Amino acid sequence: MPIVQIDMLEGRSTEQKRELAKKITEVIVETAKCQPDAVTIVIREAAKQHISKAGVLMLDK
Amino acid sequence: MPIVQIDMLEGRSTEQKRELAKKITEVIVETAKCQPDAVTIVIREAAKQHISKAGVLMLDK
Amino acid sequence: MPIVQIDMLEGRSTEQKRELAKKITEVIVETAKCQPDAVTIVIREAAKQHISKAGVLMLDK
Amino acid sequence: MPIVQIDMLEGRSTEQKRELAKKITEVIVETAKCQPDAVTIVIREAAKQHISKAGVLMLDK
Amino acid sequence: MPIVQIDMLEGRSTEQKRELAKKITEVIVETAKCQPDAVTIVIREAAKQHISKAGVLMLDK
Amino acid sequence: MPIVQIDMLEGRSTEQKRELAKKITEVIVETAKCQPDAVTIVIREAAKQHISKAGVLMLDK
Repeated sequence: MPIVQIDMLEGRSTEQKRELAKKITEVIVETAKCQPDAVTIVIREAAKQHISKAGVLMLDK
Repeated sequence: MPIVQIDMLEGRSTEQKRELAKKITEVIVETAKCQPDAVTIVIREAAKQHISKAGVLMLDK
Repeated sequence: MPIVQIDMLEGRSTEQKRELAKKITEVIVETAKCQPDAVTIVIREAAKQHISKAGVLMLDK
Repeated sequence: MPIVQIDMLEGRSTEQKRELAKKITEVIVETAKCQPDAVTIVIREAAKQHISKAGVLMLDK
Repeated sequence: MPIVQIDMLEGRSTEQKRELAKKITEVIVETAKCQPDAVTIVIREAAKQHISKAGVLMLDK
Repeated sequence: MPIVQIDMLEGRSTEQKRELAKKITEVIVETAKCQPDAVTIVIREAAKQHISKAGVLMLDK
């Protein structure tokens, strides 16, 4: 604990994911006062046809 | 908010996903009384070896 | 399968949840061409301090 | 999108949750290059008997 | 990793949750060949009005 | 119900997934006292660049 699940559009680089993992963990350790190795982050990428906002697929925006 | 996550077997067409997104959003807007752009839907497709019912993989059904 | 998880602000009535379950299941059965009893829906209610949009808690909006 | 779900032990203050939402959104906007209002965060608190590490409930640690 | 999330009807005892955590972790360690402390389990309990099967709330079954 | 979601590193064989599904369902049926066909398990595999522990991608460990 804490477990962080991030669902986002596919397309970010591995370097961006590295940064996300590092900085989000830092924020959680500082703010929620827990140990770094307590924090697990899972990133799930989704294609544009698998995400919708206001009933419209991102594919169609 | 609301966030809707749908885990389902892979294989539906983009047109089916388009319909799912549109109609589920309409139901939520009408029933839960929220704005369309408050509704985010994420569809995650799973292969048959990644889903089980009653302890048996869909692959083996 | 399909499994639908809905995270939304607390405060809707049981009748609204009854409607959401019924109508979302109907949409999925019609659109994704599956059996009604294949559809499981989990509704998770969240307090305003547990949801943020654009970095601001719903509590503070 | 992106949607962030955080499952963590109960007990943090509203102020901590406010900080988490603000700072995690900032990290995602900066790193994943998206708009602030695209970022939704859901925090789910769990009691100690609802989380286990290495097979042992946090309640029993 | 692995992260296990269990959504189930409320009402099980702490002893049942202790058993679930212990035995599921054992199965994963044995089968997926990972270390015990790599396995995190989150149990989320849901009220009967928050779960539906075949479009009907468990509350109404 | 219960719904079990397992997020784990990619790379396990179909046979391992078959075993996981079978044995986890058995544990839940025995411990949580529910029917086998009430138990749905979804396995989501993640690449090493999509999982972090203590702020470091598994890719970089």
